Amino acid sequence: MPLRVDYDLHGFTPEGPPTLWRYAPVLPIDAAHAVTLAEGFTPLLRVEERVWVKDEARNPTGSFKARGMALAVSMAKALGARALAAPSAGNAAGALAAYGAAAGLPVTVAMPEDTPRPFVEECRHYGASVHLVPGSIADAGKWLKANGPAGAFDVSTLKEPYRVEGKKTMGYELFEQFDRSLPDAIVYPTGGGTGLVGMWKAFDEMQAMGWIGKERPRLVSVQAEGCAPVVKGFASGAEKTEPWPAPRTEAYGLRVPSPIGGFICLRALRETRGTAVAVAEASIVPAAQELSRRTGIDVCPEGGAAWAAVGMLRESGWLARGDRVVVFNTGTGLKYR
Amino acid sequence: MPLRVDYDLHGFTPEGPPTLWRYAPVLPIDAAHAVTLAEGFTPLLRVEERVWVKDEARNPTGSFKARGMALAVSMAKALGARALAAPSAGNAAGALAAYGAAAGLPVTVAMPEDTPRPFVEECRHYGASVHLVPGSIADAGKWLKANGPAGAFDVSTLKEPYRVEGKKTMGYELFEQFDRSLPDAIVYPTGGGTGLVGMWKAFDEMQAMGWIGKERPRLVSVQAEGCAPVVKGFASGAEKTEPWPAPRTEAYGLRVPSPIGGFICLRALRETRGTAVAVAEASIVPAAQELSRRTGIDVCPEGGAAWAAVGMLRESGWLARGDRVVVFNTGTGLKYR
Repeated sequence: MPLRVDYDLHGFTPEGPPTLWRYAPVLPIDAAHAVTLAEGFTPLLRVEERVWVKDEARNPTGSFKARGMALAVSMAKALGARALAAPSAGNAAGALAAYGAAAGLPVTVAMPEDTPRPFVEECRHYGASVHLVPGSIADAGKWLKANGPAGAFDVSTLKEPYRVEGKKTMGYELFEQFDRSLPDAIVYPTGGGTGLVGMWKAFDEMQAMGWIGKERPRLVSVQAEGCAPVVKGFASGAEKTEPWPAPRTEAYGLRVPSPIGGFICLRALRETRGTAVAVAEASIVPAAQELSRRTGIDVCPEGGAAWAAVGMLRESGWLARGDRVVVFNTGTGLKYR
Repeated sequence: MPLRVDYDLHGFTPEGPPTLWRYAPVLPIDAAHAVTLAEGFTPLLRVEERVWVKDEARNPTGSFKARGMALAVSMAKALGARALAAPSAGNAAGALAAYGAAAGLPVTVAMPEDTPRPFVEECRHYGASVHLVPGSIADAGKWLKANGPAGAFDVSTLKEPYRVEGKKTMGYELFEQFDRSLPDAIVYPTGGGTGLVGMWKAFDEMQAMGWIGKERPRLVSVQAEGCAPVVKGFASGAEKTEPWPAPRTEAYGLRVPSPIGGFICLRALRETRGTAVAVAEASIVPAAQELSRRTGIDVCPEGGAAWAAVGMLRESGWLARGDRVVVFNTGTGLKYR
């Protein structure tokens, strides 16, 4: 079962440069010992009166994965790791390669063999050893377990507890950017689900510090029809997700057939009165384009999926016109071109 | 001759969110009326004891071009433009396409036909009309003049005065990030040279406000051997640059054979006791890789050229070990893969 980091929580005022290290009192390591590329504190850009995009493309390596890897690599280094490894559907590999380089630690990554070249070349640019494996991220993970370097520390999603700690800062940032309040709904493209799980944890911490009450933003998991284990689990009332056979989507970050934290996602969705939405593959790229052409934000397919879901949830009435809604653009579209 | 914006200067304390709008008192338009994607205030990351990278890849659209386009498009819109156009060696086109989308104004760009596809696809993603033209950015400019949409406002480098105003904020940021001081040298990959010209102007404004004295960082223009009009003009003591025949380099941002502001760059280099360096084409990508593998920063070829120049200037003794040096990484490497 995934480990969870707990803190002796005391209220604090975020301060310092515009990075996630503003929240150091609720992070497992001091900024002074961090392996950092100035990640986090990404802009919250308004799309319309009550809808915003949290633009995670503005992180190092162009995705939200930088947050988790900054913490995971900082902790791995502090705890004595000599090498790092992880499987990835795309963006996590680039982030791990970059933070490994910053830490001076060798990195091995395994990715599905049909991952677009820009993701692969990015890792090589940082000097990482890249292995392309037939199948999905699940197969890449198996390959790495069997064939990866023996001494490398495994920073796979939720196999160590610190990536979640990095991701949870998205929740702290929303609170700061909304002037010490939270939106009514958060629409989040969900692959491994660490971001969702992280924000959910952040809100609990905020309540423990007296920053907020029991109320929570409704969390929405968005997946692609071709790989929707969380949506299926949510709809069927299951406690955990079942492996998705033959996962297929060009929103590569969503191609995670057996999210190790799937059961935590399901709890987070239910406890916040949220929901889970599968969007049609054909709607993903047009939705990304539509949002980019409206805003100037470089929306990736995963962000496009989230935007398509907003349309569906408005049409069904699940999202009301008055709701304050945050849509996550988890990364830059540049790696998909 | 390029127009220049002058202000009735009064000292101020930068404040507000971490964007270039912190410096609104020395910008031509209020933040409230800006077309903005939260550009600027990019991180200054340490490479070694006295060397830093200013990582412009962290801007919207992944390059320093966002700064200039944010100001140019904001002003064009405020002054009534109904459509926008510019030639580009690559990154400026993507930035213009994004800010045009944010402003709700149609955009036409012309680029050299051998510009890598990611630059082209980026523009199309934002809905811009893209024309690929044989030759260099100079030829793209000629094409646009002859064939571009009649009513479109021309935001070419230095044909309007506001792109420089956006770029100059890099100088203001350095001052703030170095705790109200400036580095000893700034090593800057120079295509059109607007960034260099902008920072030089910023330092004059700072002196007029009493923030600094007469001292200036030594400015260094870095170009590729295959297109080095500023280096040639500097070495020969010329007052202006001569068009470079058959410009050739894969650092596309440096492929500017006749920079309209070349003569201003030459003045800036001389008045700051700076210099100009041409780096071998073969050294550019390895230098970018070396810096990325050392730091975790995604260094583009132009940034690689600047890093190669640092090595040369240290070897020659022009840069001393004790000098505080800032190297600009003007954009993300992602579009070159």
